[in-house]
Amino acid sequence: MEPGSGSGGAGPAVTPVAAVLPAGGSGERLGSATPKQFCAVQGRPLVSYTVRAMERISWISKIIVVVSPENIETMKSIIEKYGHERVMIVEGGITRHRSIFNGLKVFAENEFSNHLLQKPEVVIIHDAVRPFVEEDILSKVVLAAKEHGAAGAIRPLVSTVIASAADGCLDHSLERARYRASEMPQAFLFDVIYEAYQQCTDYDLDYGTECLHLALKYCNTNAKLVEGTADLWKVTYKRDLYAAESIIKDNLSQQVCVITYVKEAVAQVGFLLHEYLKSQIKVHLGVSENISFSIGMEELTRIKKFAREVKKKNILVYGLLIQYKDHLLLQETVNSAAALIMALIKDRNPELIGQLLVA
Amino acid sequence: MEPGSGSGGAGPAVTPVAAVLPAGGSGERLGSATPKQFCAVQGRPLVSYTVRAMERISWISKIIVVVSPENIETMKSIIEKYGHERVMIVEGGITRHRSIFNGLKVFAENEFSNHLLQKPEVVIIHDAVRPFVEEDILSKVVLAAKEHGAAGAIRPLVSTVIASAADGCLDHSLERARYRASEMPQAFLFDVIYEAYQQCTDYDLDYGTECLHLALKYCNTNAKLVEGTADLWKVTYKRDLYAAESIIKDNLSQQVCVITYVKEAVAQVGFLLHEYLKSQIKVHLGVSENISFSIGMEELTRIKKFAREVKKKNILVYGLLIQYKDHLLLQETVNSAAALIMALIKDRNPELIGQLLVA
Repeated sequence: MEPGSGSGGAGPAVTPVAAVLPAGGSGERLGSATPKQFCAVQGRPLVSYTVRAMERISWISKIIVVVSPENIETMKSIIEKYGHERVMIVEGGITRHRSIFNGLKVFAENEFSNHLLQKPEVVIIHDAVRPFVEEDILSKVVLAAKEHGAAGAIRPLVSTVIASAADGCLDHSLERARYRASEMPQAFLFDVIYEAYQQCTDYDLDYGTECLHLALKYCNTNAKLVEGTADLWKVTYKRDLYAAESIIKDNLSQQVCVITYVKEAVAQVGFLLHEYLKSQIKVHLGVSENISFSIGMEELTRIKKFAREVKKKNILVYGLLIQYKDHLLLQETVNSAAALIMALIKDRNPELIGQLLVA
Repeated sequence: MEPGSGSGGAGPAVTPVAAVLPAGGSGERLGSATPKQFCAVQGRPLVSYTVRAMERISWISKIIVVVSPENIETMKSIIEKYGHERVMIVEGGITRHRSIFNGLKVFAENEFSNHLLQKPEVVIIHDAVRPFVEEDILSKVVLAAKEHGAAGAIRPLVSTVIASAADGCLDHSLERARYRASEMPQAFLFDVIYEAYQQCTDYDLDYGTECLHLALKYCNTNAKLVEGTADLWKVTYKRDLYAAESIIKDNLSQQVCVITYVKEAVAQVGFLLHEYLKSQIKVHLGVSENISFSIGMEELTRIKKFAREVKKKNILVYGLLIQYKDHLLLQETVNSAAALIMALIKDRNPELIGQLLVA
């Protein structure tokens, strides 16, 4: 869907839109040496998921990833490894606002690129550590920014917010219903946010964190607030990495190719297995007639070697032996096979590849 | 550690302390029919983890779990199944504050129990959906409540908090450094919080959510704010259940009993495996001399049957065949075995029990 088409709201498809992803954080709240945007989730750095989420949206013409100087090479290799396109790396500043400002400069100053990039009408600002952003909310904030000059996603507060007095005691608590958490993505008319950064004091550049605040303070632009979904949350703590991993596993393609050693009733097994799994995954039943029931150690070693080989292409191969003596037990055996397949898909544990499991 | 001993701060060990756990929420933000406190995490309801966290603290004399009428039987069966002690179930009201008030009444009114429970000097209030609470923070809020009348755990804000105007646009954003998220646990002198609830207007009982606010408004008690750790987060969304599951898996006992079919060099394999795994888990090597290398289907079926049997006692049994032809390859095979063991422990997938894996 482009802004301007579909149910998500209307707006001209021709609006030039770019995105800036600040990815310069140090991740100190994560308790890890690796900044969270570079932490691997299912073997792939978090930032790569976020870039992919932006990249698959055709109407975003350019994605600027702003990283700290020491991570430029890492980011380059991520872009190469995962084949990201329309991405440009910019060196960040020492604070979040200075990094975003650097990202915006590629559209306005010659400092960062050989040729000045075409200035977008609207620029999206989105955190590199919010990988689950959907086109719908991006479209909404872009359209709202076109109309209001600035827009940002918001969410209900999970906890009550309180102010403390100087003695460390409660001063007052805020009425939860009247406030919202400001999340990402946000979007701005490029001229509004760039003007705001140019006017911005050093104090705000160094201590502020909220772009909507800058648009209000320096350009008198009251951002439109757009209710977002729960997916917009930011990976902040280690538990968030765990959650991200589970969600990514859930979202991964649920296609599976099952190669079985079934000598008879292939069609029946295939039908039952498909019936059982159809709401979850697609099953391709491959049958090898000339493999006997007694699997030798040599054969197991060959399967494992093959599995290790194709794992390099990100294909996880497991063996599954479906055997039943009695046609009455077929249903039970197939159920057991289906449960095993679901378990393997759920965990996607690479250490188990090449194992021959028995249903 | 009792309050009054250890490094966590001082206070008389004899302070009578009870806890009230509101567990009446409907979990609508989770997007699930089951309220989140009753969602199973590794097969056990979340509330049971939280009760256990309170129960293992010897100086908490009584734990009042407040649940909605339709969940009383569920809660009873959880208490029975997991052998919880010092727990009493109380029927909740239609809002959070009304539920907590009901929980407090068991110490002050005859309405809820045959015999009035001994009134504690300090009462802890803690959410049933924050299972990772540690003794240290409980001790700190109890001691602070003794001194100040009220105390609560706080955390830095993850997002900027903003106020919206009537037109859905940004009115102002709060300076993040000046505010905190109010979390749980909280603790109160019983007389302070009970007095607050007795004075409390219907409006506050129905629309308020913050106990610290009631203590301030009705008893003029400024709660002491205590910085908590990141563990205090509340299970709110589905992703939080994922995170809780990963954390619980990490925390589970890392003992494993490995029964191998190794015919020779048992000591060597055992030593290497132990070396490899010692920082992670304990390994007990069992050796069965009379099992041959060729495993028949009958034997596999027997292993699976046995595994299904002991799974009822929450013991997960997997078979692991460690075979090597050449002593030069021993190290490699042992590494592979250790990786398999770690993978099984990490995923704890019950569907794979009884499988014979090959290292």
